Amino acid sequence: MQGNFQVRTDLALETRESFAKDHVEIRGVRIEEAADEEHELYTTTVVIETENGARAMGKPVGNYITLEAPNLSSENEEEQRRVSEMLAGYVRKLLGERDAVLVVGLGNREVTPDALGPQVVNQLQITRHMVREYGKSYSGKMNRIVSAVVPGVMAQTGMETLEMVRGIVRETKPEAVIAIDALAARSTRRLNRTIQITDTGINPGSGVGNHREGIREDLLGIPVIAIGVPTVVDAATIVNDAMEQVAEAREYQQSLRERIAMQLSTMFVTPKDIDETIRRVSFTLAEALNIAFSDAPISDIK
Amino acid sequence: MQGNFQVRTDLALETRESFAKDHVEIRGVRIEEAADEEHELYTTTVVIETENGARAMGKPVGNYITLEAPNLSSENEEEQRRVSEMLAGYVRKLLGERDAVLVVGLGNREVTPDALGPQVVNQLQITRHMVREYGKSYSGKMNRIVSAVVPGVMAQTGMETLEMVRGIVRETKPEAVIAIDALAARSTRRLNRTIQITDTGINPGSGVGNHREGIREDLLGIPVIAIGVPTVVDAATIVNDAMEQVAEAREYQQSLRERIAMQLSTMFVTPKDIDETIRRVSFTLAEALNIAFSDAPISDIK
Amino acid sequence: MQGNFQVRTDLALETRESFAKDHVEIRGVRIEEAADEEHELYTTTVVIETENGARAMGKPVGNYITLEAPNLSSENEEEQRRVSEMLAGYVRKLLGERDAVLVVGLGNREVTPDALGPQVVNQLQITRHMVREYGKSYSGKMNRIVSAVVPGVMAQTGMETLEMVRGIVRETKPEAVIAIDALAARSTRRLNRTIQITDTGINPGSGVGNHREGIREDLLGIPVIAIGVPTVVDAATIVNDAMEQVAEAREYQQSLRERIAMQLSTMFVTPKDIDETIRRVSFTLAEALNIAFSDAPISDIK
Amino acid sequence: MQGNFQVRTDLALETRESFAKDHVEIRGVRIEEAADEEHELYTTTVVIETENGARAMGKPVGNYITLEAPNLSSENEEEQRRVSEMLAGYVRKLLGERDAVLVVGLGNREVTPDALGPQVVNQLQITRHMVREYGKSYSGKMNRIVSAVVPGVMAQTGMETLEMVRGIVRETKPEAVIAIDALAARSTRRLNRTIQITDTGINPGSGVGNHREGIREDLLGIPVIAIGVPTVVDAATIVNDAMEQVAEAREYQQSLRERIAMQLSTMFVTPKDIDETIRRVSFTLAEALNIAFSDAPISDIK
Repeated sequence: MQGNFQVRTDLALETRESFAKDHVEIRGVRIEEAADEEHELYTTTVVIETENGARAMGKPVGNYITLEAPNLSSENEEEQRRVSEMLAGYVRKLLGERDAVLVVGLGNREVTPDALGPQVVNQLQITRHMVREYGKSYSGKMNRIVSAVVPGVMAQTGMETLEMVRGIVRETKPEAVIAIDALAARSTRRLNRTIQITDTGINPGSGVGNHREGIREDLLGIPVIAIGVPTVVDAATIVNDAMEQVAEAREYQQSLRERIAMQLSTMFVTPKDIDETIRRVSFTLAEALNIAFSDAPISDIK
Repeated sequence: MQGNFQVRTDLALETRESFAKDHVEIRGVRIEEAADEEHELYTTTVVIETENGARAMGKPVGNYITLEAPNLSSENEEEQRRVSEMLAGYVRKLLGERDAVLVVGLGNREVTPDALGPQVVNQLQITRHMVREYGKSYSGKMNRIVSAVVPGVMAQTGMETLEMVRGIVRETKPEAVIAIDALAARSTRRLNRTIQITDTGINPGSGVGNHREGIREDLLGIPVIAIGVPTVVDAATIVNDAMEQVAEAREYQQSLRERIAMQLSTMFVTPKDIDETIRRVSFTLAEALNIAFSDAPISDIK
Repeated sequence: MQGNFQVRTDLALETRESFAKDHVEIRGVRIEEAADEEHELYTTTVVIETENGARAMGKPVGNYITLEAPNLSSENEEEQRRVSEMLAGYVRKLLGERDAVLVVGLGNREVTPDALGPQVVNQLQITRHMVREYGKSYSGKMNRIVSAVVPGVMAQTGMETLEMVRGIVRETKPEAVIAIDALAARSTRRLNRTIQITDTGINPGSGVGNHREGIREDLLGIPVIAIGVPTVVDAATIVNDAMEQVAEAREYQQSLRERIAMQLSTMFVTPKDIDETIRRVSFTLAEALNIAFSDAPISDIK
Repeated sequence: MQGNFQVRTDLALETRESFAKDHVEIRGVRIEEAADEEHELYTTTVVIETENGARAMGKPVGNYITLEAPNLSSENEEEQRRVSEMLAGYVRKLLGERDAVLVVGLGNREVTPDALGPQVVNQLQITRHMVREYGKSYSGKMNRIVSAVVPGVMAQTGMETLEMVRGIVRETKPEAVIAIDALAARSTRRLNRTIQITDTGINPGSGVGNHREGIREDLLGIPVIAIGVPTVVDAATIVNDAMEQVAEAREYQQSLRERIAMQLSTMFVTPKDIDETIRRVSFTLAEALNIAFSDAPISDIK
């Protein structure tokens, strides 16, 4: 990435790749990789350890786990289940002993690629009201106290999502928030097959809907785990990427790119079957959370 | 209404009628009626003035305005608009000088006759975020600072609606809440053609979804205006009403009624075109609020 | 049932019961019953053998299999599957060797209790276009050549469903039609837990949407299997049933009943969770058809 | 356009522009232009007059009227109405004296940018069943005999749309078909603001859903008017267009373009607000048809 044109990505993995391409090592950023070739599951953990690393990456200090899983939107029940269980393992690990969880489904349920969060919340097993009514032993199956909310987007509510979530957190006192969001990626190859899980919460400017304010531990007083799946690529990005492959005078290209970026600024790229895909991905994520919140045994996460 | 079987209605008008039928006058309850025969608009104001009246009516002290308007779900734009303007007038009167309003769309958007509140909120012109960004002069059209939320129902959220609304109110500091809800009536004749506006808020047990806790000024610290439209009749009610017309030994009937009430307890009666009707009614209500919140001139309410 | 007030039911089983109650035997109508108590599956086959039986029952000569299955809308996968397999068995038996099947999803997808047919069709595995492209061996899994259509209702299309289906049948030449429809029952106990399968097709006046013309073998030239599930009770019916239990002067009651029937003529009774229930029932039915059309082994139907 | 990579467009206007850019005149193709600057309405009529012109354009002989109207998805009622009336005029002109019209809503109602046709049909005033019931004088308002169908896509039905439409045409005998479809354009500038009206019907390979067979007069026996609005751009196209602006060795670029085209073959570009836009565009089109079919006076089309 050169010059002023900024290719946008919400994936720490992609930000890091753009450095790697230029053979730049970033101090304060550590990478771990693991692969389960048989089941096509690839995990990359980007740990931003210092403020220096955070500046370089343009993302806060913390852990960014990226799960690449072509089967995220699989129709095959077994394959889909394997992804759910793997994700459930990471969620459990990050939740630790925290019992009461508020799941926040970010995004706009009426804009297909932004409807991931609302659709995940629709499929969760909610327990908080049952636990309050019948005590924690009402069911052997659910271990956590789960509540959920779909706050909607600012054009629909007139309120910052942060305001709504903070009010609800203060009133209902969960111990952790899990925020689900649709993300923008840089590469179409990643759409609907990558999950990013991070303990740094939601950052301003991220997401398909471009959140204006963050949803983070320092703003809410409790940890925020963010789970995101890229569902769109900014249209300007794919043009930019193609042009980078053409070796040409830099100056000319830069102004051309900016012109194109402006023309395409309200456009995004999605797969042709996005409506169906969002349904499937949201099911896999909801299952992952339902498993994470239950006492179902799952294979260990290394 | 005799014996133990309780016919349920959320309309103060209908509670009062059941007394009137038995020629009972209730102290502490005052009635005012007005009719606009030409436009088929009938207004009944039930004022519960004393605790005695409240006990008798089973509803709290306050004003209950009932607007009977066959054109509430009219396809004719002019007729529909007249209902919207009339309702807008009552809303303005009850709001007074309060500028910042939070509209709460109660109910379940996935259960047709309970989706009225969410559908109204979908069609509102939201201004709070614009006013905060550009100041109150950003548009000459909107006078109030409008925000809105669809909290969802407890089975979906695990939280009481009151908890969510109270949290959001504390964080975003509106001066009044307007709660929109689908109601249960006693008579099928009233379905989708009656609007009840009250300054007493939402009471426990009311609504198609049977709210467990109230949403009232004493719980939120700011006035709550509730606007409701009956969209269902409990199935047991229509059977009971029919049977009352048959003069029969009371004792036998009472037990029969209770048996039938139990059998029908999960059933309700709706018009065959409820999906389309809810769309139209929600449009009329949303228009009413959009007018009420703007500086559009409307004919005076007497 | 006495006098002029006609309680409406689309279930042959219920018509027959109303006779049985009055201890009337009908010549030309044969009944067979089977019960699987363990799995709560009850089958009643009403065979109308003669024109005399047809007149008495108000339904054409043919076989009416009624499957009573509380698990029709079960969330439990195993229970739901058992119902699907049982229904699949009956469908296979009635289809016989006919290979090419057109499934017709009757009803209005925008009116919840009438949306059963469209929702079933949405979940079918369609094969006709694949067989035409790749030959019948393209998949070992699907044995039949399956096509499907949701014709919509007359107010949306301006056409009789029969006209549309006949045109499509003539052009695409299936060997049998399976028509899926939502029915009206007499008793709320039967809603969403009863399936009627018949080889007599769809008759005028039946269905939630009151089909104006039939869809039958004599009109299409190929056999028509109709599969229906009652999703509503006419509101007048439950009142009438309650009143029958009150021993009263017949004449008076009759006129009262007619008055009530008129008042309630545009109302129906549905369970409060009808939106969710229709989703589940349509899944069970679609699974049944997918199994029936495949070569999956299922337990024998006696 | 050079080499093997084919930039796809369903708009005759855009095909013609790509020739114009290379200063190529095509024999047998005539162009007429008209502009209403005040209301931002631009009409280009491409008349393909000869088989030679048809070969060059890759589209059949006939008239292609393109209406460029930024207000096609306007929220302003007056602006939107003006577009509807203009389109209504062209439809009336092409329909001539034909009285009985079947409107076919092509596309997949569950894929947002392909749902234009189904959404238009949902909002039409259907009259055929009323005329058959009450005679043509039943309403002074509707002059034409209107029926409509949403056939669905082949993956849902197993049938070619042509088969279904031909069957229905033979059975119900309309005098003309109007087919509504979502198109692919070459330029994002045209999305949701251009309408193409043609008397050549639907051609194989056109449309967002890539129709496999045409729907044309020679296949149906009655005239077919096709109305299309571009709602997507193939993702490969915007990359290709950008790269054309970079003067580079042709050979290298051509192979790069093909590689990119392959990578992006399942992706398309849409505006971020596509769900809302489709709702608005479909309303404008439905209004246009409702006006065209009525006897409402509209300003003349020159």
